[in-house]
Amino acid sequence: MTSVLTKNLKLALLQFHAGADKIANLNKAKTFITKALEENPKLDLVILPECFNSPYAVDQFKQYSEEIPNGETTTFLSNLAKTLKIIIVGGSIPEKAIDLKTGTEKIYNTSLTFNRNGEIIAKHRKVHLFDVDIPNKITFQESLTLSPGNKVTVFPVEDFGNAGLGICYDIRFPELAMVAARQNSGIQFYPGAFNTVTGPKYWTKFAIARAIDNQVYVVLCSPARNPNGGYQAYGHSLVVDPFGNVIVEGDIGEEIVHCELKPEVIEEARREIPITTQRRFDVYHNVADDATVSDL
Amino acid sequence: MTSVLTKNLKLALLQFHAGADKIANLNKAKTFITKALEENPKLDLVILPECFNSPYAVDQFKQYSEEIPNGETTTFLSNLAKTLKIIIVGGSIPEKAIDLKTGTEKIYNTSLTFNRNGEIIAKHRKVHLFDVDIPNKITFQESLTLSPGNKVTVFPVEDFGNAGLGICYDIRFPELAMVAARQNSGIQFYPGAFNTVTGPKYWTKFAIARAIDNQVYVVLCSPARNPNGGYQAYGHSLVVDPFGNVIVEGDIGEEIVHCELKPEVIEEARREIPITTQRRFDVYHNVADDATVSDL
Repeated sequence: MTSVLTKNLKLALLQFHAGADKIANLNKAKTFITKALEENPKLDLVILPECFNSPYAVDQFKQYSEEIPNGETTTFLSNLAKTLKIIIVGGSIPEKAIDLKTGTEKIYNTSLTFNRNGEIIAKHRKVHLFDVDIPNKITFQESLTLSPGNKVTVFPVEDFGNAGLGICYDIRFPELAMVAARQNSGIQFYPGAFNTVTGPKYWTKFAIARAIDNQVYVVLCSPARNPNGGYQAYGHSLVVDPFGNVIVEGDIGEEIVHCELKPEVIEEARREIPITTQRRFDVYHNVADDATVSDL
Repeated sequence: MTSVLTKNLKLALLQFHAGADKIANLNKAKTFITKALEENPKLDLVILPECFNSPYAVDQFKQYSEEIPNGETTTFLSNLAKTLKIIIVGGSIPEKAIDLKTGTEKIYNTSLTFNRNGEIIAKHRKVHLFDVDIPNKITFQESLTLSPGNKVTVFPVEDFGNAGLGICYDIRFPELAMVAARQNSGIQFYPGAFNTVTGPKYWTKFAIARAIDNQVYVVLCSPARNPNGGYQAYGHSLVVDPFGNVIVEGDIGEEIVHCELKPEVIEEARREIPITTQRRFDVYHNVADDATVSDL
């Protein structure tokens, strides 16, 4: 059996919180990446949280937004990846872009991944905006200021094989991971900032659901709780293996969570329960056949 | 918001084990249904386990198989439903049918549902056959003697709204529940006989995955462990609500598990997190659009 993950991948989940000072946020990312590499010099990849360079607030996305690839955060992460020779799944940032059809400016919640040469190898714009209203608990409406992406993201992680990527609320919609897994991804990344209401109820459950339905590793990286106030993320960055077991999990504060992903675990899961070859696309449509997939 | 479940539904999960004597198995089903009704005279529906009238063994399905609707089990359940005025989700039985194209006899793992007039309102043939090989733990190959069904099952449960139904291993494939939920089902039934290896690892996880992805109730009914030997089912018949909470769960022995499903719980889940209206079918295909759905 040819694995969708070609060799062991050592990764670190960087759980930290962002503040109002963008430069400070970027420097914190650098500090965490450097520390993760000190803890494990053989590290292949780091993943940052959703909205790691700005507060997570609908009324501030525009102010913090940058163009891609010309903005300072893109340049900063690209240089880090190249200098430190590490793959960076760059959480997400508010992106500013001119809509070519209308000429108007739009803001997206966008994730960039860089290879060890500092090149962008994936760009995902959050497809499903977080518009929810839980009375007396949490109300959030990203669509007030953000526009949604229009593509599923699947990309080769250098020579490790393919990965899929969604952002936070995207995890509630099974199709993104289904498409990626069926296009030979062995890992599904989700930078995400569930909150203290939805986190305890759903964070781990959705990670497990994506993992067992697709027999892939699922990697969720959250901001830490912020002692200075503002939106409180759930924390609990974690990795679920293809059997649906949570194999590493952070707490709520700032921390680095290390994990090694192994091809033989994916192979064993698929050999034991061979759902990947038993699907009945004569009875139902294969969503991977005709999804709109990102080509950067 | 119009609910997909129109009113409260009182149901009982009948967790019992079958033996080699088919008549004894049918009588046991009758005993359990009668007892459930004694415990709650206002019961609307009972669900039986997978393979409740025969041993769960590939070399015995043929011997126990019956034609539908002319076999004795169909007649037995139909009469019970009519006499006791109760909806019966009839677990599953080995069905014998002549393939009209080839003239050969085929055996299916088939579930019938009866309304309170004793009429068949749903017929599902297991779509995904359980062919697995976990070295030194469990090897099972249904396809040695069974043929697979070719349709997704969605049906109106009298005037309670729609339900979907799959059998056991079908639960590992998300599409059946996705199609049913998107065709207005508020409940997904799975008679299932996970075993003592796969049960602890996966039974509850898949039930939760189907529930949260579709915001529906998921009802799993298992045989009890069999003290007389043979295939040992996991037990733990359970109901998961649309939030992904296990709201009732049996143990491993013979028992009756009662539960009441409530429209307002589905409504609340969907109002809080409105995924049912936020899917992006412009980015990925809606599997409910063109699945092959059972019409009996």
